[in-house]
Amino acid sequence: MSSDTTTPSTQYGYISDKERYLARLKRIEGQARGIHRMVDEEQYCIDILTQVSALTSALRGVALGLLDDHLKHCVGAAQLDEEGAEEKLAEASEAIARLVKA
Amino acid sequence: MSSDTTTPSTQYGYISDKERYLARLKRIEGQARGIHRMVDEEQYCIDILTQVSALTSALRGVALGLLDDHLKHCVGAAQLDEEGAEEKLAEASEAIARLVKA
Amino acid sequence: MSSDTTTPSTQYGYISDKERYLARLKRIEGQARGIHRMVDEEQYCIDILTQVSALTSALRGVALGLLDDHLKHCVGAAQLDEEGAEEKLAEASEAIARLVKA
Amino acid sequence: MSSDTTTPSTQYGYISDKERYLARLKRIEGQARGIHRMVDEEQYCIDILTQVSALTSALRGVALGLLDDHLKHCVGAAQLDEEGAEEKLAEASEAIARLVKA
Repeated sequence: MSSDTTTPSTQYGYISDKERYLARLKRIEGQARGIHRMVDEEQYCIDILTQVSALTSALRGVALGLLDDHLKHCVGAAQLDEEGAEEKLAEASEAIARLVKA
Repeated sequence: MSSDTTTPSTQYGYISDKERYLARLKRIEGQARGIHRMVDEEQYCIDILTQVSALTSALRGVALGLLDDHLKHCVGAAQLDEEGAEEKLAEASEAIARLVKA
Repeated sequence: MSSDTTTPSTQYGYISDKERYLARLKRIEGQARGIHRMVDEEQYCIDILTQVSALTSALRGVALGLLDDHLKHCVGAAQLDEEGAEEKLAEASEAIARLVKA
Repeated sequence: MSSDTTTPSTQYGYISDKERYLARLKRIEGQARGIHRMVDEEQYCIDILTQVSALTSALRGVALGLLDDHLKHCVGAAQLDEEGAEEKLAEASEAIARLVKA
């Protein structure tokens, strides 16, 4: 659960700025909680929808950031002649397709 | 905060099934927390993206449900010759535009 | 094919400004033709993608306009106590869902 | 306009299967023309929206294909130690962002 681990999990440590992602995701969690509260308080439907759109947009921002990090990692791996660059890229293309359709 | 209120907030109580929305939003909050944890644990980027797509998709489902409820309310209000049906509808169209772009 | 018909097709004539839609769709057709030409000329992939995004955006604008017209028609029909307002609305909700996912 | 050219335009010839893209884009152009005709004939709004969604979906398919080709090209260029792989990738990330928002 915590990130102060010494495991080789850092093999995926190509997230450019982990702390910033964690802060954005905390904010996203708060937005989700806020929408729950708005429905519970029976606030105006259109206002709730506005918040849902804002949350969707925030999520998309995170996804595009992660994707960019991943693609940079793919190119970096290719330059170092590491194996698996093509495979990682194929996964990225599938992730993009899911994202565009989500 | 609680919904057992007797305030006139129920003027917007056209949400078809509040409990179901609250349950879905609780789940969405849990999904956001899960993504935060995945980043914290430095899990594989593509797996995180898959979860972001799933969360986006769940949010969209909630939004489409709320929108459908709102539109039904607009038509109901129009049938009762209530004022403001056109205005509510214009708000709905704007919400749809935001949603489609979000 | 032509619109100077006297058939009852105008029962659906709730498109706010047909000539404007036709002009936008002509432009969209031209955009599609332009993208075909760019691929044929093997222009730079990213430039082609930019044009695909612009075309998608133009299409979305048309869709949102048509949807708004349809919803206004639903509310108008409800105010006149016409039958079928709920059904038309249900179709609209399904169309919105398709649009958001498209 | 034609592709039987011997110019160095093939520097961008990383489109996997040009003929197939051209055929898909021809179909897309036909879909756009069909929507124009539906509006001209004042067909049912919801049916028109269905066709707009289908066209949007077809365009997205083309975009995802082109993007995949471009990304493969980026990784290939990186493996060959060509200059500009990072720059091409940055362009790809921007194109993805435009696509997701389009």
